[in-house]
Amino acid sequence: MTSSGRPAFVFDLDGTLLDSVYQHVTAWQRAFAAIDVDLSVWRIHKRIGMSGSLLAKRVSHESGRELTQEQQDKVVALHTEYFTESVDRVQPLPGARDLLVALSEADVPWIIATSGQADEAESHLAKLDLPEEPPWISSAEVASAKPDPEILTAAAEQLGVDPPECIVVGDAVWDLLAARRAQMLGVGLMCGGYSQQELIEAHAFRVFMDPADLHASLDQIGVSLE
Amino acid sequence: MTSSGRPAFVFDLDGTLLDSVYQHVTAWQRAFAAIDVDLSVWRIHKRIGMSGSLLAKRVSHESGRELTQEQQDKVVALHTEYFTESVDRVQPLPGARDLLVALSEADVPWIIATSGQADEAESHLAKLDLPEEPPWISSAEVASAKPDPEILTAAAEQLGVDPPECIVVGDAVWDLLAARRAQMLGVGLMCGGYSQQELIEAHAFRVFMDPADLHASLDQIGVSLE
Repeated sequence: MTSSGRPAFVFDLDGTLLDSVYQHVTAWQRAFAAIDVDLSVWRIHKRIGMSGSLLAKRVSHESGRELTQEQQDKVVALHTEYFTESVDRVQPLPGARDLLVALSEADVPWIIATSGQADEAESHLAKLDLPEEPPWISSAEVASAKPDPEILTAAAEQLGVDPPECIVVGDAVWDLLAARRAQMLGVGLMCGGYSQQELIEAHAFRVFMDPADLHASLDQIGVSLE
Repeated sequence: MTSSGRPAFVFDLDGTLLDSVYQHVTAWQRAFAAIDVDLSVWRIHKRIGMSGSLLAKRVSHESGRELTQEQQDKVVALHTEYFTESVDRVQPLPGARDLLVALSEADVPWIIATSGQADEAESHLAKLDLPEEPPWISSAEVASAKPDPEILTAAAEQLGVDPPECIVVGDAVWDLLAARRAQMLGVGLMCGGYSQQELIEAHAFRVFMDPADLHASLDQIGVSLE
């Protein structure tokens, strides 16, 4: 626990604070189709939350296709292009803004750690409609993205807290696997489309529906805002 | 079992044979947004496979909004419109065509039972690229859609087999709950985005990844094509 006797939070962005997973899934499918790789959509969904280049590599491998570096780069670029086309329809998840504002008001440290690309992050963060720009870190700043724990460790460092003081909040099994490897507690949210059981099997300390449900249940993970 | 000593199959369409769940989810979200109901996408996904009007009623209720009959009708019509816009990107799931052709060649009776609308069904069935028009039934022909078992019972009747001889293949918990109530075995496919555990909890007799995986595993459910 931090010197305040309370944990610090490291939040994932897509699927955890923003309702953007399905737009990402659809954008990936279109990007793969553009290079003549037909993939079942559910396989893409299960890889969301990994870095784009890792997803491109793994999903195409699962489909029995090995992409060249050039093809991987193209599919990542096309995903960005197609996602941008649908970004207007991305909304914050219920309670996301209220939760973050409440944590700030109670002086609970928090940061957003996203596998998304750094040049997109600012416009996506704006969708949270926060009173000031939130602290954030993207996987561009570290050598390897989730499920590697490096971005979480860097996030803790930026907050000035030790990893075991951090609670990672994420919707994907990759967030939770990374949290466990970083010696942090992982809290799973179902609003990215993973089931409770999948999140528990990825070592979620506790699972909630969405940010509003987490906010109402903070006492369950030892956080009091009073 | 039928007189041939082998079961008959009742297949769901969307998410089971066609990779269309995510297009449906996105179309529903756009439709709800058009009548100023902002819904988290994962809540829509969990209701896919129900009839459209039931989905409209339940999802809006969950969000704390009660829709008038006029609003429900509008959201159902808009979903159809938006889905049609993206239908060109809908592909068959891996192995769907091969499985159905193999069953036909082995004289195993099968039928497609879809909660989708009857006027859309024919163009969607065409995506399976089958050698002849498949036998099918839509929920328009029965009073209540899945998770009610009525469409499954009607499908068995159309095949001329008794319900306990039927194996229902579906990707949604609603298919499997309906199967159990119809006294049929339910086989779950993960390709619609539900997890194995969710399908097992909905009484799946067995869970496979997609039609290709089911095809390769038919012996596990007592079906031999030889």
